[in-house]
Amino acid sequence: MGKPHNREKLHDDKGNAAMDFDYSTKTEALRARVADFMAAHIYPNEQALFHTAHSQADRWQPLALLGEIKQRAKAEGLWNLFLPQSEHGAGLTNMEYAPLAEIMGRSPFGPEAFNCSAPDTGNMEVLTRYAAAEHKERWLKPLLAGEIRSAFAMTEPRVASSDATNIETEIRRDGDEYVINGHKWWISGAPDPRCHVLIVMGKSDPANPDRHKQQSMILVPFPHPGVTMKRALPVFGDDDAPHGHAELIFDNVRVPAANILLGEGRGFEIAQGRLGPGRIHHCMRSIGVAERALERMIRRLESRTAFGKPVAEQSVWRERIAESRIMIDQARLLTLKAAYMMDTVGNKGARAEIAMIKVVAPNIACKIVDWAIQAFGGGGVADTWLSSSYAHQRTLRLADGPDEVHRDQLARLEQRRYQNTDPARSGGYPNVMIADGLSEPGLPL
Amino acid sequence: MGKPHNREKLHDDKGNAAMDFDYSTKTEALRARVADFMAAHIYPNEQALFHTAHSQADRWQPLALLGEIKQRAKAEGLWNLFLPQSEHGAGLTNMEYAPLAEIMGRSPFGPEAFNCSAPDTGNMEVLTRYAAAEHKERWLKPLLAGEIRSAFAMTEPRVASSDATNIETEIRRDGDEYVINGHKWWISGAPDPRCHVLIVMGKSDPANPDRHKQQSMILVPFPHPGVTMKRALPVFGDDDAPHGHAELIFDNVRVPAANILLGEGRGFEIAQGRLGPGRIHHCMRSIGVAERALERMIRRLESRTAFGKPVAEQSVWRERIAESRIMIDQARLLTLKAAYMMDTVGNKGARAEIAMIKVVAPNIACKIVDWAIQAFGGGGVADTWLSSSYAHQRTLRLADGPDEVHRDQLARLEQRRYQNTDPARSGGYPNVMIADGLSEPGLPL
Amino acid sequence: MGKPHNREKLHDDKGNAAMDFDYSTKTEALRARVADFMAAHIYPNEQALFHTAHSQADRWQPLALLGEIKQRAKAEGLWNLFLPQSEHGAGLTNMEYAPLAEIMGRSPFGPEAFNCSAPDTGNMEVLTRYAAAEHKERWLKPLLAGEIRSAFAMTEPRVASSDATNIETEIRRDGDEYVINGHKWWISGAPDPRCHVLIVMGKSDPANPDRHKQQSMILVPFPHPGVTMKRALPVFGDDDAPHGHAELIFDNVRVPAANILLGEGRGFEIAQGRLGPGRIHHCMRSIGVAERALERMIRRLESRTAFGKPVAEQSVWRERIAESRIMIDQARLLTLKAAYMMDTVGNKGARAEIAMIKVVAPNIACKIVDWAIQAFGGGGVADTWLSSSYAHQRTLRLADGPDEVHRDQLARLEQRRYQNTDPARSGGYPNVMIADGLSEPGLPL
Amino acid sequence: MGKPHNREKLHDDKGNAAMDFDYSTKTEALRARVADFMAAHIYPNEQALFHTAHSQADRWQPLALLGEIKQRAKAEGLWNLFLPQSEHGAGLTNMEYAPLAEIMGRSPFGPEAFNCSAPDTGNMEVLTRYAAAEHKERWLKPLLAGEIRSAFAMTEPRVASSDATNIETEIRRDGDEYVINGHKWWISGAPDPRCHVLIVMGKSDPANPDRHKQQSMILVPFPHPGVTMKRALPVFGDDDAPHGHAELIFDNVRVPAANILLGEGRGFEIAQGRLGPGRIHHCMRSIGVAERALERMIRRLESRTAFGKPVAEQSVWRERIAESRIMIDQARLLTLKAAYMMDTVGNKGARAEIAMIKVVAPNIACKIVDWAIQAFGGGGVADTWLSSSYAHQRTLRLADGPDEVHRDQLARLEQRRYQNTDPARSGGYPNVMIADGLSEPGLPL
Repeated sequence: MGKPHNREKLHDDKGNAAMDFDYSTKTEALRARVADFMAAHIYPNEQALFHTAHSQADRWQPLALLGEIKQRAKAEGLWNLFLPQSEHGAGLTNMEYAPLAEIMGRSPFGPEAFNCSAPDTGNMEVLTRYAAAEHKERWLKPLLAGEIRSAFAMTEPRVASSDATNIETEIRRDGDEYVINGHKWWISGAPDPRCHVLIVMGKSDPANPDRHKQQSMILVPFPHPGVTMKRALPVFGDDDAPHGHAELIFDNVRVPAANILLGEGRGFEIAQGRLGPGRIHHCMRSIGVAERALERMIRRLESRTAFGKPVAEQSVWRERIAESRIMIDQARLLTLKAAYMMDTVGNKGARAEIAMIKVVAPNIACKIVDWAIQAFGGGGVADTWLSSSYAHQRTLRLADGPDEVHRDQLARLEQRRYQNTDPARSGGYPNVMIADGLSEPGLPL
Repeated sequence: MGKPHNREKLHDDKGNAAMDFDYSTKTEALRARVADFMAAHIYPNEQALFHTAHSQADRWQPLALLGEIKQRAKAEGLWNLFLPQSEHGAGLTNMEYAPLAEIMGRSPFGPEAFNCSAPDTGNMEVLTRYAAAEHKERWLKPLLAGEIRSAFAMTEPRVASSDATNIETEIRRDGDEYVINGHKWWISGAPDPRCHVLIVMGKSDPANPDRHKQQSMILVPFPHPGVTMKRALPVFGDDDAPHGHAELIFDNVRVPAANILLGEGRGFEIAQGRLGPGRIHHCMRSIGVAERALERMIRRLESRTAFGKPVAEQSVWRERIAESRIMIDQARLLTLKAAYMMDTVGNKGARAEIAMIKVVAPNIACKIVDWAIQAFGGGGVADTWLSSSYAHQRTLRLADGPDEVHRDQLARLEQRRYQNTDPARSGGYPNVMIADGLSEPGLPL
Repeated sequence: MGKPHNREKLHDDKGNAAMDFDYSTKTEALRARVADFMAAHIYPNEQALFHTAHSQADRWQPLALLGEIKQRAKAEGLWNLFLPQSEHGAGLTNMEYAPLAEIMGRSPFGPEAFNCSAPDTGNMEVLTRYAAAEHKERWLKPLLAGEIRSAFAMTEPRVASSDATNIETEIRRDGDEYVINGHKWWISGAPDPRCHVLIVMGKSDPANPDRHKQQSMILVPFPHPGVTMKRALPVFGDDDAPHGHAELIFDNVRVPAANILLGEGRGFEIAQGRLGPGRIHHCMRSIGVAERALERMIRRLESRTAFGKPVAEQSVWRERIAESRIMIDQARLLTLKAAYMMDTVGNKGARAEIAMIKVVAPNIACKIVDWAIQAFGGGGVADTWLSSSYAHQRTLRLADGPDEVHRDQLARLEQRRYQNTDPARSGGYPNVMIADGLSEPGLPL
Repeated sequence: MGKPHNREKLHDDKGNAAMDFDYSTKTEALRARVADFMAAHIYPNEQALFHTAHSQADRWQPLALLGEIKQRAKAEGLWNLFLPQSEHGAGLTNMEYAPLAEIMGRSPFGPEAFNCSAPDTGNMEVLTRYAAAEHKERWLKPLLAGEIRSAFAMTEPRVASSDATNIETEIRRDGDEYVINGHKWWISGAPDPRCHVLIVMGKSDPANPDRHKQQSMILVPFPHPGVTMKRALPVFGDDDAPHGHAELIFDNVRVPAANILLGEGRGFEIAQGRLGPGRIHHCMRSIGVAERALERMIRRLESRTAFGKPVAEQSVWRERIAESRIMIDQARLLTLKAAYMMDTVGNKGARAEIAMIKVVAPNIACKIVDWAIQAFGGGGVADTWLSSSYAHQRTLRLADGPDEVHRDQLARLEQRRYQNTDPARSGGYPNVMIADGLSEPGLPL
């Protein structure tokens, strides 16, 4: 990023804090380490990893080479960087973790290598906060060690699950147990043979007049005799093996009552807490995808000539390069701002920023990857990284709530801002303000 | 912005600086003062000011009421806030000034009230840095006092002036004088009878092989017998009186040799320095326009019912509200980042950020004002603030270089980033990376 | 359009009609005559007409030069081409008139020259169909002769008038008269001193349970002592003199009962009939605007050089030229299709097509004019034709119903198409169709 | 489409041909037959066909069920409808075939069922026109009978193949034979075991100063010992089996000299002729995809409820439905116009229209399928038809030339239109036209 910045210029005369757009020294050092690791161990192995994933006999077998890379990352201390709690993880703030997640996100194999991949990160955070000691011992510990994996079961095929009150899975108390019946899909990671626990969301009190207290979350050991994997869902035709996305049937699944998390009826509360960081981590990685797509696009354009001149010199491509840079830089700033808000005022105070970046990040990543595909010509739709990145980013426009729902909620927050304030304070006249001296602002015309 | 943020959480363990997205205490205090002033003196007088501007007999007469408001702002010390040099101005950094300019920009009368309006701000900065003592006394002093105004003469009708090397105006040395001949337009502020000085750019050495040394800038007292005002140019049909944009003919205009700024052939250098802050100030104000348009749109939508329900409840409008908020917040962050870069690494180091925000800010302002017009229905195209804001923001997509030129230069910077780096370091393979094990990344296929 | 087409190839073997995309010989001949007239009399006089319109002492005086041009068009038989009724007009179908209106629309002075300008065309059609003999004599005859003008008073400032059931103006029967009270705006043409009749829409039976029978239309001689012109409304700051758009107050305006058109409670019915052709005529002219903007843009780009090469050779501009051509050709085809539907199955059968083109035409014209402005640089926002065309086309996105209302109604028509049909007939499965053999199409998953 | 249209109203008074936007009686009858066939045999079998294609042991085996459907279509005379030559095909014009191809295109299995699928259609047309009798007997006859298939080898991985002059494959004369060496990819259909002939494009005279005479096309029996299939290329991760897209290496492939088509150096000429119909057929089918995606989207939206109301009632979705209808209707009109032009003035005269629709059709199909995916939520990215349609349409933005190349050529045609015409004839002033009476249009300012 060129020469060091003169941050000291920015202190205010009383020595108070000022805005600061530079990464801290600590962050810069970690960024360099993560980038070096990617260059040394991930990028050179991507072809092999893709190849094995698509060709191994048992397609649901974990990738052995990735397992080796994980051990190395663990040994280097580049491990569980996502976890804010310093007793288990790196103790990084969201803002410190964001630029690292961006670099990891450049490769589909990056996040797992650092034990920072969804849905385990969110699940580890939920377990850290809400699980009983025995469950932490059984599941959190091996998850933190990267020995097992986990899944999160919320979405259902029969209902618009973006409205969580629609969810139909039943979690019924029966003596010392809960009995779970329902139909879930998009349970990412469940097909992985290392997946040993599910966090399931369902209705424990469907008649509760407070619709946000009808839901609970509960731990289900996995595999479980009552849980049938109907199939692995394809994403744009690809089953994403060996990770995968399962469709699961829960048929009278019985678990001990102690498996309920935080308490009956508090599922919504946990979901709110879980989804904030989960969404922001996705966004950070999306920016990494966009950044790499832009780099690949530029290098490609410079390697080709058509109709007598290098394609990189055509202004229509220059426009796209510039717009890509603008979109990425804006999205990164917004992600960092959201992370900052989460760190300073909490997930609820940051909900507008989280909603915004949840819409922005996968959309700009899709757009830039799509331009890159166009720049690669026929090679673009065949390029494994480009096409799987597109499919993944496209899916993120639906996962954890479709764009439409986030925009709607953001608009409601925005409308609320002006509800009890005086338009005259801000020139926000709701009626026509015309300069002819005949109409009064604020009066109906 | 709700409860105070826990910034202390963000210090790194060694006490090093961390990113910070909150305004400083100093900035917050100034924001409140500027907003109060707008509420007390600008918004309630806008109708009267618009009315006088459109109806007074001599349309080029300064607005007396605005003159009174200026005196009050000066008395309150809300004056020359734009000027970083603390001996003359408020000594604010660009980052501190940005949020104030945003608030001023909410009204077309805001910036002048605080003696912070273009083109005077840029001209005052040029005079502060480069003018001789006698010229400072003659022009800078009354400009700082808000007693006179000034203009900047660069653009020419005959050539694509975004490429400054096209400029044809001649500045020829003749003994102790320079003689200026040329045709300029879009000389904003020149029709104002208080305008007493022009900064003129032209070619003093058209044969210089270094095209960036052909240009000089020179001070021309105004009015001047050799300078004819051909007319005031309309912007979307409006002449913007009493400020206005002149078309000027320079016919053998003679000025003392000492009027040259910084030295012959250094016009380009001054322009570079001048345009950075000038552009960023425009962007700050554009964000204020966008913010106010959004507020007015929301209040309007909530005041209307069609086909049996409030227009504000239609999801197509909610989508636009959300997208507006997203665009504004991203643009504001990018503006602040650009200001931060200017403050820490200088205008040259910030040129990518300045180019980006120069494209983004007026474009999003146009988009949001356009949506607001649509929300106001027939009233929208007749609303003086909405229609003049649209015209002004639209013009800013051309002024100081059209979008196309900024995007092109931004793309070149971007392309340069990858020119001498190894794609293997970053996974930036210029050729197709396919997972079948047959193709090598980085090799031509 | 190059060499003649082989239409005969297209006859089907039984000699049945086949699709045909060429203008008829009759249409081609008329197009040539209208284009010649524009070249001979309109384009060379535009500067003078604009100049007079903006500078004459009494700004609401009709333009004498335009009056002379009208006489000439009348003498040449290029007159009232819009009127399908051959007893008064040219007897052209909508499809035949469309390409002529397109050419007229290239200049803001074109339509009036041929006595084909809004709102007179729609009003003449209403009078032709529904007016009593005495009213035809009094108003239709001089309108057809181009001696007087007329206005149409529907929109109101206090309510969202796109939902016509919101309209509040009262038309109350009182003996042999009707008494009208209300507040209207955007009454185009009313400020013209030649305007001698208003067609006013209001509620004669506000309690009627059938909301579409509450409205009537009534003729009001103009000027009228009970009608006050509050002001002429600006459009993007321009009052569009000497045509203009009035805000009118109706205060106990009494007119004979016979002035009601078609019958009490039939206002909605007339409006439906009037708006179809009115909208399509606007669309035809919008395409003319877009076509001329594209031509001017191309010629401009070819006349300028920047950064060492002609601007016309930059691929970003080539992309815009291509997209402009695509948008125009698609919009023209859709306009012609809508006109064809109106001619063959009537306005009601053509309502989807009319709604579509009502959205498309002004939007693409705005887009292309905006690009042209960008291509002209600073000259673009000052160019009278470009900026007034933009303002006019922007207004058309609101006039006769905003885009949002047309899209909404179009979507409802579309949704209705599938309501009672079997999805299996068309592969229109509403639920997920997945290829794994486990899910049945059409069954809920 | 509702009640029959009154076409007779449209005859001009001399009985001359007029524009006509209705399908002919013949076309309507064929449309009904093709739609019935799709409803009876294709849609109900899609699941089974998809399932077999993805699960059969030998993935490159033709689908037996599709073979049976083909026999039925042949028996019903719905066969080779694409071929204009009545001695072999249905003798339909492009305009008559377009609406049939649209219906076939609704399913990926439609076109092959009617023996109307790419690349065979284009290849059959080339063989019909240019092949020697023995080659017709050997390859055209069984192709017309649907017994064998064929492929077209043009694109190369090493060069930007959209500029055909870049092509590097060598076709060298050696005695009575030609020897072919090169590397091709995207050879669709080559992996199908029924593929028995390749049409290969390459350079027979690379030194010819006329770059459009360097190329030849030649027939290569397939499989051939000198041709190695390196692999089947994935499209967004899917190999499109059992059709597929091959990467082929030609290593000293020797074929008789008589296999050259039309004559040495005439490859470009054949390509021009082949690509016109090929592109237009793709566009017709793309419209079918868009139409079906819209239908599925609407039905889906009506089957879901979120946040208390049916999703179909949200205006943001209504806007998308309306925009989809507008895009489809415009694209269909443009396709039909292009087909009409090809029928009446030939492929060369229709090249602007072909370029336009080549850009428009796959782009709008991608957009509408993408909206449909969003409407289907998680089910959207897993839905085989939606995701494979997206991948296919996305690929069509590159196949037969990327969007950028078509737009560029279209823009050049457009620029040429104005090169030798007088701007005064059309008001196309290249310089600023301002209403103040001081500037002359057409003069430099």
